[in-house]
Amino acid sequence: MSSPFNSPDQTNLSNGKGGRARMLISCPDRPGIVAAVSHFLYEHGANIVQSDQYTMDPEGGMFFIRFEFDLNDLEKELPVLVEDFTRVADRFDMKWHTFRASRKKRLAVFVSKEDHCLLELLWQWKAGDLDADISMVISNHPDMRELVESFGIPYHHIPVTASTKAEAERKQMEVVADKADIVVLARYMQIISPKFIEQFPNRIINIHHSFLPAFVGGKPYAQAYTRGVKIIGATAHYVTEELDGGPIIEQDVQRVSHRDNVEDLKRIGRTIERVVLARAVKWHIEDRVIVHHNKTVVFN
Amino acid sequence: MSSPFNSPDQTNLSNGKGGRARMLISCPDRPGIVAAVSHFLYEHGANIVQSDQYTMDPEGGMFFIRFEFDLNDLEKELPVLVEDFTRVADRFDMKWHTFRASRKKRLAVFVSKEDHCLLELLWQWKAGDLDADISMVISNHPDMRELVESFGIPYHHIPVTASTKAEAERKQMEVVADKADIVVLARYMQIISPKFIEQFPNRIINIHHSFLPAFVGGKPYAQAYTRGVKIIGATAHYVTEELDGGPIIEQDVQRVSHRDNVEDLKRIGRTIERVVLARAVKWHIEDRVIVHHNKTVVFN
Amino acid sequence: MSSPFNSPDQTNLSNGKGGRARMLISCPDRPGIVAAVSHFLYEHGANIVQSDQYTMDPEGGMFFIRFEFDLNDLEKELPVLVEDFTRVADRFDMKWHTFRASRKKRLAVFVSKEDHCLLELLWQWKAGDLDADISMVISNHPDMRELVESFGIPYHHIPVTASTKAEAERKQMEVVADKADIVVLARYMQIISPKFIEQFPNRIINIHHSFLPAFVGGKPYAQAYTRGVKIIGATAHYVTEELDGGPIIEQDVQRVSHRDNVEDLKRIGRTIERVVLARAVKWHIEDRVIVHHNKTVVFN
Amino acid sequence: MSSPFNSPDQTNLSNGKGGRARMLISCPDRPGIVAAVSHFLYEHGANIVQSDQYTMDPEGGMFFIRFEFDLNDLEKELPVLVEDFTRVADRFDMKWHTFRASRKKRLAVFVSKEDHCLLELLWQWKAGDLDADISMVISNHPDMRELVESFGIPYHHIPVTASTKAEAERKQMEVVADKADIVVLARYMQIISPKFIEQFPNRIINIHHSFLPAFVGGKPYAQAYTRGVKIIGATAHYVTEELDGGPIIEQDVQRVSHRDNVEDLKRIGRTIERVVLARAVKWHIEDRVIVHHNKTVVFN
Repeated sequence: MSSPFNSPDQTNLSNGKGGRARMLISCPDRPGIVAAVSHFLYEHGANIVQSDQYTMDPEGGMFFIRFEFDLNDLEKELPVLVEDFTRVADRFDMKWHTFRASRKKRLAVFVSKEDHCLLELLWQWKAGDLDADISMVISNHPDMRELVESFGIPYHHIPVTASTKAEAERKQMEVVADKADIVVLARYMQIISPKFIEQFPNRIINIHHSFLPAFVGGKPYAQAYTRGVKIIGATAHYVTEELDGGPIIEQDVQRVSHRDNVEDLKRIGRTIERVVLARAVKWHIEDRVIVHHNKTVVFN
Repeated sequence: MSSPFNSPDQTNLSNGKGGRARMLISCPDRPGIVAAVSHFLYEHGANIVQSDQYTMDPEGGMFFIRFEFDLNDLEKELPVLVEDFTRVADRFDMKWHTFRASRKKRLAVFVSKEDHCLLELLWQWKAGDLDADISMVISNHPDMRELVESFGIPYHHIPVTASTKAEAERKQMEVVADKADIVVLARYMQIISPKFIEQFPNRIINIHHSFLPAFVGGKPYAQAYTRGVKIIGATAHYVTEELDGGPIIEQDVQRVSHRDNVEDLKRIGRTIERVVLARAVKWHIEDRVIVHHNKTVVFN
Repeated sequence: MSSPFNSPDQTNLSNGKGGRARMLISCPDRPGIVAAVSHFLYEHGANIVQSDQYTMDPEGGMFFIRFEFDLNDLEKELPVLVEDFTRVADRFDMKWHTFRASRKKRLAVFVSKEDHCLLELLWQWKAGDLDADISMVISNHPDMRELVESFGIPYHHIPVTASTKAEAERKQMEVVADKADIVVLARYMQIISPKFIEQFPNRIINIHHSFLPAFVGGKPYAQAYTRGVKIIGATAHYVTEELDGGPIIEQDVQRVSHRDNVEDLKRIGRTIERVVLARAVKWHIEDRVIVHHNKTVVFN
Repeated sequence: MSSPFNSPDQTNLSNGKGGRARMLISCPDRPGIVAAVSHFLYEHGANIVQSDQYTMDPEGGMFFIRFEFDLNDLEKELPVLVEDFTRVADRFDMKWHTFRASRKKRLAVFVSKEDHCLLELLWQWKAGDLDADISMVISNHPDMRELVESFGIPYHHIPVTASTKAEAERKQMEVVADKADIVVLARYMQIISPKFIEQFPNRIINIHHSFLPAFVGGKPYAQAYTRGVKIIGATAHYVTEELDGGPIIEQDVQRVSHRDNVEDLKRIGRTIERVVLARAVKWHIEDRVIVHHNKTVVFN
């Protein structure tokens, strides 16, 4: 069954004394949830350093909470905590996950010919602003091999044509399997199949180069130019089967004018795209995003 | 034939020695236009205080220019200038209009039950920030009579029902006729008929409560909530026969989050709507907007 | 001693079965706070509908939390809860306050000659967007009496001159005494004395017409024009003895250009000022602001 | 004498038939300027593709205009045009310069230990978005040699200590001499001497990591954190003898909250800094900036 959260970490913990963990919970709202969970965490020696919650009042009363907490002997204590928490979770009918902050999520970045979003991720990663591992870059073009390998990151060139699409996707899955927690489509211009999406429920992040839901589909900057909008934007969202229709994680915009032609819009848009995608990836890897139906709760 | 500009003022000039005028020109681009017009204005004693131009390079090379100039004896000299300019205009195949800055445009404001956009206009008008006359307010509801009349502005309550729509519009046109240069739909929740639009080509300004072209049609805040966007906006545009499809004059946006329900979006949106509408009206009455095809050139 | 919170409500509760309350707490950080408080609230039958917390890690580890909760019989149960909470509070060395959501805070709005900030508050109040009572408007000028009284709000004209300043302030305090929880300086152009500030610790909100700390003091738009900034702003802050130096609650900005003269900056600034002030007042009256040293924690 | 414009190009023209040129003019306002210049350009076969003007009404009436125009045989015709224009310029007491669009300006980029602003420039340059040559990078640290040289750009490591400051600057000037039109301080953390500034009047662009004039001087993010501002920014300005006091070219901002510590502000600020600096450099190299007294007119 599809999880509302990103890469789970309930079982395979690695070494490291002390440290920080995060817990994401969603469940039907009712009295006593915060008390029960915070009491449970306290009893297990966890010091809550941040908590955020949200009650979705009008619609069936879903409740969402994110805890960030420190444990003295994380390696030993977190599995115990995870096991014991089942009783609390069952009582409140919770969907939940814990994540160790120190276990970096592994990204597989897909890219086509535009390099700006990839570059932003590589750059932030190198600057230490992106707390993740970039396991690989996969592209349907050979162009960025040298760039990517200069960062010490493996580059897989997997061409995609109409006739080889299925085979190409099989290869992609083979390469990604067990090596990535998240797939980032950094201006990857091919449609992802339902079968692939199924493998990464709410863990494929795409950057769409428009302020969705305006300008769904191809050539959004040309569409924006034709419509004569005065502001353009970009949207980072989880990929679902509906094209450009998945849960929105982050959006941002920039003012433009009649003087800006399609090329200007593309140039201005590049900066928006990379900033928006980088923010969305950052929030995802810090376990700040919960998906509920087709929307996100972002505790940032 | 429909004009690309707003209320024309080429003939009926009123009194007042000295003063400022504006000239809006659009024509196919070719060498010598700026030279010819600025030389012409200089010869006629006009001192150019501002000029803005835009060349729409890739698409057939349309050229747009706005001059703001002072004339010593405006009453006497502007008609001469207007008459003489015909020769220049014919030479370059220009569409053009002149406007005296001192001749305030007259607004007919249409409103339904939401008062915030109307209030913003009344308020800016009273504060002297809106250089226009508000000739009347027309509403399909009686609710705002007292408010509007307290500003010394006539209020026409013209109810609209499915069966009386045609009759209501006949009354509206009768009331507006010769008394308004511009119609402002300040959250007027009725569809304007093609016949009415024809009377005010590119002179009906509507505020749509979404970042168009996202969320065309009814209940845009509910649509925005359902889609889970992270930014909401408002759009001021000229009204054409295509619903919410006319040339966009101005847009603005505001960040929202998962915590904001539909009521919150409406509340936040009210501030965006009134700011955007007021800006669009201001630019229009200062003759800063040229419509070309379905887009605007805004010299602000 | 000065309180870090706004108008306290720990004792005098009025009628009303069921309802919402808020609790603001600040204390030195240590394990178990969230558990203790949420357990306490649960035991007292409170259903937490929102909680926000913030740990100020690097500096001495202060901890701040805001709870919003529902109680079945608020009138009867809140006093019990308040009394019992003392034990929890003592254990963690907490500064804390509870507030009933239904008890509207009472505003005294001070104004001079510029009416836009006052108008925004009156308007939002009338539209139901400002969940407070406006008890009175106090001005050193008579100009806005008619406007204010048309809203059914008392207007006190208390002239201030160099020689009558002390006497004027005595009158102001007399008029405000017991009738206002918060003082809002909506472009009130007189300095407030330390004696007055002492009466309303962190409960006087001022709007300064610049992006503080840029352009402290008089004529900020003229200063901004002279400096040639490309963006202007406004700042809502609590008033302390240091002129324009108190804790900042909210700021916002707008892009300007070389074309904008001082009058344009003032006009553009008016919209920023009223939006920023209204937001700050809204957050204050919803008990979303905690002051710590000279900064604010805003749980919005 | 110091010029209000950037790198002049009135004499040394290089090869290339046809092409675009730009003309920047500032002079006391009086009637007939636009007519005279546009007539002059027309007579010389120049087709004006863009013009922007600004009249600084209240203060002594300075007039600024920027023309962008095409000439058929630029190599042959521009020198003629430049020579002939003297008569027009003298008549109106103009300061003026022409620039060929095809003659790329040469940048010397100064950098210390933070690489993000340099990287943005390198990246935009490589993507073709920065229409300039990067002649060299000069740093007081050796760290970025490999990065810079991988772009094929010379790297000069010139250490600066308190005792070698004068000698270091002599070396810098030697290296830069005749090889750069513009100096870009891309987070260069040393003070530039008046002697150096004199060599590049209004042609040294600095990025300051605050929303000037707030937080002049060192450690602006720490200052911003201490003051508790809700928005941070960055400022690109020309360097003058007054520290952080030169004419502002561009500014931008981003919202922050109490949750952001100094490190967060630095991280968020990095994106603002690089975007703002890149925009300022772009406008400068497209000859869109005129300096008048301590302010800029930016025709963008």
